[in-house]
Amino acid sequence: MARIFNFSAGPAVLPEEVLKEAAEEMLDYNGTGMSVMEMSHRSKAFEQIITEAEKDLRDLLQIPDNYKVLFLQGGASQQFAMIPMNLMKNKVADHINTGQWAKKAIAEGKLFGKINVIASSEDKTFTYIPDLNNLKISDDADYVYICHNNTIYGTKYHQLPDTGDKVLVADMSSDILSEPVDVTKYGLIFAGVQKNIGPAGVVVVIIREDLITEDVLPGTPTMLRYKVHADNKSLYNTPPAYGIYICGKVFKWIQKLGGLEAMKKINLEKASILYDYLDSSKLFRGTVVKQDRSLMNVPFVTGSDELDAKFIKEAKAAGFENLKGHRTVGGMRASIYNAMPIDGVKALVAFMKKFEEENC
Amino acid sequence: MARIFNFSAGPAVLPEEVLKEAAEEMLDYNGTGMSVMEMSHRSKAFEQIITEAEKDLRDLLQIPDNYKVLFLQGGASQQFAMIPMNLMKNKVADHINTGQWAKKAIAEGKLFGKINVIASSEDKTFTYIPDLNNLKISDDADYVYICHNNTIYGTKYHQLPDTGDKVLVADMSSDILSEPVDVTKYGLIFAGVQKNIGPAGVVVVIIREDLITEDVLPGTPTMLRYKVHADNKSLYNTPPAYGIYICGKVFKWIQKLGGLEAMKKINLEKASILYDYLDSSKLFRGTVVKQDRSLMNVPFVTGSDELDAKFIKEAKAAGFENLKGHRTVGGMRASIYNAMPIDGVKALVAFMKKFEEENC
Ligand SMILES: Cc1ncc(COP(=O)(O)O)c(C=O)c1O
Ligand SMILES: Cc1ncc(COP(=O)(O)O)c(C=O)c1O
Ligand SMILES: [Mg+2]
Ligand SMILES: [Mg+2]
Ligand SMILES: [Mg+2]
Ligand SMILES: [Mg+2]
Repeated sequence: MARIFNFSAGPAVLPEEVLKEAAEEMLDYNGTGMSVMEMSHRSKAFEQIITEAEKDLRDLLQIPDNYKVLFLQGGASQQFAMIPMNLMKNKVADHINTGQWAKKAIAEGKLFGKINVIASSEDKTFTYIPDLNNLKISDDADYVYICHNNTIYGTKYHQLPDTGDKVLVADMSSDILSEPVDVTKYGLIFAGVQKNIGPAGVVVVIIREDLITEDVLPGTPTMLRYKVHADNKSLYNTPPAYGIYICGKVFKWIQKLGGLEAMKKINLEKASILYDYLDSSKLFRGTVVKQDRSLMNVPFVTGSDELDAKFIKEAKAAGFENLKGHRTVGGMRASIYNAMPIDGVKALVAFMKKFEEENC
Repeated sequence: MARIFNFSAGPAVLPEEVLKEAAEEMLDYNGTGMSVMEMSHRSKAFEQIITEAEKDLRDLLQIPDNYKVLFLQGGASQQFAMIPMNLMKNKVADHINTGQWAKKAIAEGKLFGKINVIASSEDKTFTYIPDLNNLKISDDADYVYICHNNTIYGTKYHQLPDTGDKVLVADMSSDILSEPVDVTKYGLIFAGVQKNIGPAGVVVVIIREDLITEDVLPGTPTMLRYKVHADNKSLYNTPPAYGIYICGKVFKWIQKLGGLEAMKKINLEKASILYDYLDSSKLFRGTVVKQDRSLMNVPFVTGSDELDAKFIKEAKAAGFENLKGHRTVGGMRASIYNAMPIDGVKALVAFMKKFEEENC
């Protein structure tokens, strides 16, 4: 079968040329006579892979020298614990609740300290980003935590909360590298790579050096200490080497496209095609308020559960995969990450138009 | 370049036919139109992959129904913390010290409770397995911990300590699936897959159900609770899906060879070729006492640092990679895991003979 259009929220579509290169190099990477899967993580060949991956990510995001880049295991979910275990000195954190991933971080944080939910959009099923103008940031908070792009509800911070002298921590799992960001605004950015960067099993952490301390909560495992991984350049133990190698290829693919400004342009174009249609359609509508819409995850509904189900079924039959909304939300969701070709979005909209004609 | 003989201790050589299949399926797994890297972990296709992987591993190791099989992240090193965090009820564990990996588990355990080192081979640089006949197992120990095969020193338990009614926990990272084991003798077996099973980034945990409890140490992160992963069949969060897929292929490869009895026969044959030569050689000698030798990791020396260095250099030039001993030990080490072809061992011995002739 030919490659289909995969709108999965993650793990998600990867650039076809990256997969092709990986396939070609599977038995012999760059004349080494072995697969990257078989390489000692202490070998020169792998050292070059991880060093280049870090360098390319630094270039793309313009990461300043006083930030470390770590490639870790455990997914974004493990960061929900690592962050309080490493950053809580007063054992207090302020969180903004924008839905399931924000909630999970709140629940995990409560294992370790006091969590203040300083804003929430729960009243309207997380269809917007709360007003950021009158946030009451706690004097004793160790950090302020946001979910930069909510994968499930399809919301995104187009503007950041002003946290004053408080450290801002952001879960960018579902929008990292979709556009430029000013890293200096954050103390810590993390992202499970399985949406916009690579295969599941790697989480990228970008952390300001002053936040990397020995002084962690008692009982913090060695593997959950940022300092251990920073001191060992992500090679304290065997890293998820093959995943890092694929991430590195994706970084180069973005560079070739022109970097994050170019990526943003493409993403805006793709998202507009879909949102413009949703706004003009009489059958379909987007569920998020316009100003907070994600460029990556686009949830939409017909208003009828039966029609939603019919749409998902017919779309699947036509080669559009994974359009079902998250099991906790229902409806549809099209995730249109960096690697989703514009043709995929155009084809989806054409299919939606046809479906609308047939069902209105 | 052609594939070389890769004697790396891990990540390590994988079966060539597994890599070939993975390369072929890279852009389109089994008619799904996508790579396994791109698949939702909640999809039918991936569910089948992980279910089959578990089933095949159960078949190979004859894992009883009252044991759970988990595919987790964080490597073997994270297990050093997860084990005490989950299994310590009295906060006491007995450990046998057979070298670096045993020591790391001891050090990590001390973050959480009292660790009694009830036997050690440190007096002779870990070149043997301590006498297991007069172990003083502590009345209040929650478990007894061993490193079943020490990757660095090349020792292996050919017999198990009698732990009475105490739970036996074993790190089998470097010898899992090298031969049959009686799983019922253990409460928990774990293994980073990157030696005998697959690409780094997956750790397999085989755990008896009664050891999976809610009652963990305070401050145990959600991601470090066996119960969370067991209740969610390793899909609590996004798993290292591509790694699990490769592991599954390796399980099938072992099944095709005839299962673990057949694998053991092959491993014994390979190891004998190397050990017999070491025992007859006037230049080279193995460093481990005969009765405790590993079938997987074979450390050896000439007795001269210069000759060792010369050997490693010439071997590399001749296509034998990663024969350098661990940086903490020196000398040479040939790791001859399941996927090392017998021809690789024969070629290595032929090369060693030639080197001996030239340098004696
Ligand atoms: C925004 C966000 N945060 C966290 C997670 C959890 O990531 P992981 O499955 O790697 O733990 C996800 C997963 O989809 C996510 O979308
Ligand atoms: C026996 C043993 N245990 C534990 C480890 C650590 O594994 P990881 O790097 O996956 O944490 C190793 C790694 O080589 C090992 O050989
Ligand atoms: Mg959220
Ligand atoms: Mg509309
Ligand atoms: Mg040991
Ligand atoms: Mg000899």
